[in-house]
Amino acid sequence: MADKPSIPKGTRDFTPLEMARRNFIFDTVRKIFKTYGYLPIETPAMENLSSLMGKYGAEGDKLLFKILNSGDFKGKLSEEELVTIPAGKLGTMISEKGLRFDLTVPFARFVVQHRHEIVFPFKRYQIQPVWRADRPQRGRYREFYQCDVDVIGSNSLLNEYELVRIMDEVFSALRLKVVIKMNNRKVLAGISEVIGESERMMDITMAIDKLEKVGMEKVMLELEQRGLGKDSMQKLEPVLKMEGSNREKLEFLEDYLGPSTTGMEGLVEIRQLFGYMEPDTMEAEVEFDITLARGLNYYTGSIFEVKSEEVQIGSICGGGRYDDLTGIFGLDGVSGVGVSFGADRIYDVLEQLERFPGHGEMDTRVLFVNFGQQEVQYIFPVLGKLRNRGIASELYPDPAKMKKQMSYANSRNIPFVALVGEQEMQDGMVTLKEMETGNQERLTPEQLVERLSV
Amino acid sequence: MADKPSIPKGTRDFTPLEMARRNFIFDTVRKIFKTYGYLPIETPAMENLSSLMGKYGAEGDKLLFKILNSGDFKGKLSEEELVTIPAGKLGTMISEKGLRFDLTVPFARFVVQHRHEIVFPFKRYQIQPVWRADRPQRGRYREFYQCDVDVIGSNSLLNEYELVRIMDEVFSALRLKVVIKMNNRKVLAGISEVIGESERMMDITMAIDKLEKVGMEKVMLELEQRGLGKDSMQKLEPVLKMEGSNREKLEFLEDYLGPSTTGMEGLVEIRQLFGYMEPDTMEAEVEFDITLARGLNYYTGSIFEVKSEEVQIGSICGGGRYDDLTGIFGLDGVSGVGVSFGADRIYDVLEQLERFPGHGEMDTRVLFVNFGQQEVQYIFPVLGKLRNRGIASELYPDPAKMKKQMSYANSRNIPFVALVGEQEMQDGMVTLKEMETGNQERLTPEQLVERLSV
Repeated sequence: MADKPSIPKGTRDFTPLEMARRNFIFDTVRKIFKTYGYLPIETPAMENLSSLMGKYGAEGDKLLFKILNSGDFKGKLSEEELVTIPAGKLGTMISEKGLRFDLTVPFARFVVQHRHEIVFPFKRYQIQPVWRADRPQRGRYREFYQCDVDVIGSNSLLNEYELVRIMDEVFSALRLKVVIKMNNRKVLAGISEVIGESERMMDITMAIDKLEKVGMEKVMLELEQRGLGKDSMQKLEPVLKMEGSNREKLEFLEDYLGPSTTGMEGLVEIRQLFGYMEPDTMEAEVEFDITLARGLNYYTGSIFEVKSEEVQIGSICGGGRYDDLTGIFGLDGVSGVGVSFGADRIYDVLEQLERFPGHGEMDTRVLFVNFGQQEVQYIFPVLGKLRNRGIASELYPDPAKMKKQMSYANSRNIPFVALVGEQEMQDGMVTLKEMETGNQERLTPEQLVERLSV
Repeated sequence: MADKPSIPKGTRDFTPLEMARRNFIFDTVRKIFKTYGYLPIETPAMENLSSLMGKYGAEGDKLLFKILNSGDFKGKLSEEELVTIPAGKLGTMISEKGLRFDLTVPFARFVVQHRHEIVFPFKRYQIQPVWRADRPQRGRYREFYQCDVDVIGSNSLLNEYELVRIMDEVFSALRLKVVIKMNNRKVLAGISEVIGESERMMDITMAIDKLEKVGMEKVMLELEQRGLGKDSMQKLEPVLKMEGSNREKLEFLEDYLGPSTTGMEGLVEIRQLFGYMEPDTMEAEVEFDITLARGLNYYTGSIFEVKSEEVQIGSICGGGRYDDLTGIFGLDGVSGVGVSFGADRIYDVLEQLERFPGHGEMDTRVLFVNFGQQEVQYIFPVLGKLRNRGIASELYPDPAKMKKQMSYANSRNIPFVALVGEQEMQDGMVTLKEMETGNQERLTPEQLVERLSV
């Protein structure tokens, strides 16, 4: 009967300290999302597998956690089917449901399903866990939280600007120095067009996405392997080597993208976005980065990614505009844009930099020592007064040895201990001891409440 | 490609309004848990199936959602095994993981796994969804939230008392009139002993648990079918017919349970608990109810259940003491007690009674009408000022027709609309319109912030 307890690899328990720290992140983003008028929604952990399959590419499909059908899942299958159909396909025949892989596809499904109740433009945020059957490794989990903020039903670039402001405010509230990288899928399409490789846009962007990581030589090698002609590669090189300020890069591209209408459109969008930012004071640096591509296929315009300037780690936030995400569920012509904050990576960065604030206020302020039945009855109404004022207070549940009770207060970092013995009961007082200094005071219950109010 | 979107039966999407209402419940319980010194933890949605199987009885096992193993789940099985092993058993061979069924078993697993980091007595709360492959019906879902509060590592009845106070405070904060029903497994064991049917305790408690629902006659019939002798049934009848105040019931049982040491122990515990309550003022009625049994096997002492006095619905909170829950994971001799608040049923009760508070503060206070590029640049810093003060503010993202923008403000219940045209830009002012009255004021940005501060 006695199993050695463990949890599935890639998943985690969260202790009270970790919870306080995670809630610091969630509360920060939530508060900022709210001041911009975004509203919360939640969707079920399980979606119909048909809603998830085919939305994240063939690789993504393999990473979906499938829920085995309840009851006789074999029932409808013949023995032959059971034996001959390969696991990948058989899995989808014995599982109708799967765990959500991200919050974007469930959001698209939500919008289509509730479109008659929703007021557009619809600004929503969603903070929930997602699940991926990825190979677990440092900083990559099979269950992790995303904090998504999206607006759907408006083409305006003001939405992009709002999201940039939100990213800036969030990271400045978290006291993290970041750079917000920005690009536009239309510019990437324009580049492919200009070098005469329109149909290879995905290949090209996937390759140059790695520029920072692997360097120019390897990118060129990969492009050659992907079948890019010499001429195209020669035309591409100056873009990849482009340096300087955002303004200088934009000026270079103004010439370069001239022949491509799509490319020029993207450029106008980027200029417009920078235009909104100019008069403002932002904490984060915003950098136009031509090598930023983002893997997901559904992006069609602006794309964003946030990197820490202090810790070497992948992107801690990212997103972009998608012109037809709801189309996969039958609602065409609704454009949206959104970004997703990676709570777990942000956690890792804050931890590494030791930037988490203290969490005194969530912890118990005072422990009443338990000397026995009579004292306990005296303490009850005092506890009531403290708790009514929101002061977290505990009574040790057993009349254990003083040493044991004090050691509990110590281990829990409870700053005050209250002592009530015969003398206190007679005088209607409480003796309060500050753990750090050892100082003791005799107080009435009312004075105690005042003393412990933060 | 265009699926008609839907979600698995028994699951739900939560719209912004539902989220605000659910958060009202969660925030209320969380705040109260904290003032009693309980600390939050979270555990993964997926547990090893071996941690879950066999913990909820044979019926419970069937209701577990299993996660199909990733990759080649058929790999280790022969063709014969695949075909001949029945679905129930085969399911556990191709699924290593399952979704948690409640928060109690994961908590026991957590305590054992982290026992060296934990300070005992360990007071924890946990608010997370659980999943059960139950037949969906009105008020019963396949994904629903539990709010559990437990203390483990202390035998003291003060813990039970604390939980009674917490239940009372929660429901009084939610403005719900409830009765807290209380019983003790030792009393039920004592009754079985006294009537000479010790080994049939579970049968007896299961039957009398239905007394309120089906009446005396049917309970007696069921007991007969379960093999109870005539003599035993005669001895049982007066207990089931017992009426009067808590005090009268306890006095009756004092005689009745005399021959049973276990029964008398239970009685002492109940008296002790009522003793703690006497000097206090509680909102809820606390009723000693001998027919309260609670199905789960792991309870060993006090048991609790809360019923609404205003709405006909099952219990909205329940729990009890378990002396050996962690034993299933190899840690013996650790007693705990806890209760679980059923957020979804509480939601239904509050909704039916229309007791949800308004949720104005979560919603946007002011919408800035978008008249175009120039006006928008003027509005940016004003928006910044408002948001810095925590005032949720929006700018309509497109320079759409006035009527469309006003209709957005209306549908979203935004109480104020801000208008900035040429005149306002020249004078450095903003025109604020109150939607309900139609009143307009011209204000400086600073005055606007003051006016909209709650």
